[in-house]
Amino acid sequence: MAALARSVLVTGSNRGIGLELVRQLAASPRPPQHIFATCRDPEGPRGKALQELAAQHPSIKLVQLDAVNLPSIRGAVRAVGSHLKDQGLNLLINNAGVSSHATLRSLDSREMLSAFATNVVGPVQVTKEFLPLLEKAAKGVGKEGLSCSRAAVINISTKLGSIGLCLKVPEAPMYPYRASKAAQNMVTRCMAAELQDKGILCVAIHPGWVKTDMGTEKAPLMVEHSVQGILTVLANLSQDTSGAFLDWEGNTLPW
Amino acid sequence: MAALARSVLVTGSNRGIGLELVRQLAASPRPPQHIFATCRDPEGPRGKALQELAAQHPSIKLVQLDAVNLPSIRGAVRAVGSHLKDQGLNLLINNAGVSSHATLRSLDSREMLSAFATNVVGPVQVTKEFLPLLEKAAKGVGKEGLSCSRAAVINISTKLGSIGLCLKVPEAPMYPYRASKAAQNMVTRCMAAELQDKGILCVAIHPGWVKTDMGTEKAPLMVEHSVQGILTVLANLSQDTSGAFLDWEGNTLPW
Ligand SMILES: NC(=O)c1ccc[n+]([C@@H]2O[C@H](COP(=O)([O-])OP(=O)(O)OC[C@H]3O[C@@H](n4cnc5c(N)ncnc54)[C@H](OP(=O)(O)O)[C@@H]3O)[C@@H](O)[C@H]2O)c1
Ligand SMILES: NC(=O)c1ccc[n+]([C@@H]2O[C@H](COP(=O)([O-])OP(=O)(O)OC[C@H]3O[C@@H](n4cnc5c(N)ncnc54)[C@H](OP(=O)(O)O)[C@@H]3O)[C@@H](O)[C@H]2O)c1
Repeated sequence: MAALARSVLVTGSNRGIGLELVRQLAASPRPPQHIFATCRDPEGPRGKALQELAAQHPSIKLVQLDAVNLPSIRGAVRAVGSHLKDQGLNLLINNAGVSSHATLRSLDSREMLSAFATNVVGPVQVTKEFLPLLEKAAKGVGKEGLSCSRAAVINISTKLGSIGLCLKVPEAPMYPYRASKAAQNMVTRCMAAELQDKGILCVAIHPGWVKTDMGTEKAPLMVEHSVQGILTVLANLSQDTSGAFLDWEGNTLPW
Repeated sequence: MAALARSVLVTGSNRGIGLELVRQLAASPRPPQHIFATCRDPEGPRGKALQELAAQHPSIKLVQLDAVNLPSIRGAVRAVGSHLKDQGLNLLINNAGVSSHATLRSLDSREMLSAFATNVVGPVQVTKEFLPLLEKAAKGVGKEGLSCSRAAVINISTKLGSIGLCLKVPEAPMYPYRASKAAQNMVTRCMAAELQDKGILCVAIHPGWVKTDMGTEKAPLMVEHSVQGILTVLANLSQDTSGAFLDWEGNTLPW
């Protein structure tokens, strides 16, 4: 099997789904040449698991990236660019996110705006700043059609962001999280429309309800299982699925 | 024909669709007893058209309400409550909104957050603060099922907020506006689920592309025509349509 992509960047990769994505990419039979494992504090205690992983796999490069801080994003673009030299970035996975519980009654406007900043404006800004590197990858020799091995933006979304399923999945009183993820889905779709002609694929992925700090122990799905599924789905993305909203098993979700 | 509702509040009613809603409600054969025409600056020059209208119709009460300012919203709740005395508010129309054009490349994160503040957090905060008055109306004698004459929240949305139609309506490079309106649709849906048992109906309405400051002169639809349609749709809402996304002609739009 060919590598999923020559170079991959994951945001929020110090724990949870992001960490497992980096782990499985690095351990795959044909790992990407460059795995940019980014997080807010790669050298501090929160980056410990990532530091240990990077020590075992030379393909992993730790890069500081706070998705709500523009100078930090731009610093990451410079760091990644200097590693890649004359090559572009093939695969950007916008995984960093925060959850935010509130009913109408308990809702706080600042907290709601903060969820929008991380879950919507974050992925938009990160994608905007990495666009030159993604475009460079898309122009690579022998590249046609859309795929993760050419150039792609994957936004980690959630079924809770499905407006269509909202009345069917009402158990979670999470206005800010749900609204921010619906907005993120719209952004994925706008990007798919705008970037298609540049050879860049854009997809929203629901990882399932996963045992992580965010998903809690109550979640039915192990993070290993979710990420295996996600990576299989990513390997099969093409022109036909750009702009789609898929779960970790490849099923299409309603908007 | 019975009045649409005994009391109605419209946000952003000093111009555009909001002003026309107030105008047609006041001029209808059986007008609501109380029309709370709210805007940011009812006494200043921006409120002039509304002042003139209110001078002709005693049912219109001008109330200051800035949808992104919590003290202002709370002041409006107090003013409305004292007019209504022991009665509740039947119909809240969250119409205030801002448009915001940007492609991925031209996007500015502060402007994007500001669109979220007005178009999503605004209607949520306004609804949250008016909830006690809406609940009071819903409990009124002889009220059953869901309707605008009992208690309802109408969020003025847009077809551009339809994620499903995004690839088909791609001409507008409006990431912030589109994402904020998709998020607003999710909020409508969460509210519909949460408030149904309290007897409060919630619906998202697309007014069409309308000749207003926002819609510009290029828009095909006259504001009179759009608002006639909207008011007819509102009069026909029921239990079956709570949580729906309808256009000014009553057609269902995809999320
Ligand atoms: N777990 C689930 O059941 C589930 C279900 C559906 C969707 N998702 C989505 O999957 C993604 C990952 O979730 P998870 O379960 O792995 O969550 P998690 O365990 O809470 O981890 C969240 C990650 O995002 C990072 N992050 C938050 N804000 C950031 C910022 N401003 N800049 C950079 N990184 C930031 C965190 O970094 P710090 O350590 O620095 O805080 C952490 O690495 C999220 O987008 C989430 O919405 C999760
Ligand atoms: N026109 C269209 O083609 C179209 C299409 C689809 C949807 N819509 C939606 O319809 C609604 C009304 O649009 P319109 O065409 O009438 O727009 P408009 O002519 O630009 O008027 C916008 C109104 O919203 C008010 N507003 C903005 N921010 C506010 C805030 N923080 N607090 C209170 N009021 C605020 C404005 O007040 P100021 O005068 O103080 O600025 C103004 O009264 C919007 O939600 C819009 O998204 C319009």
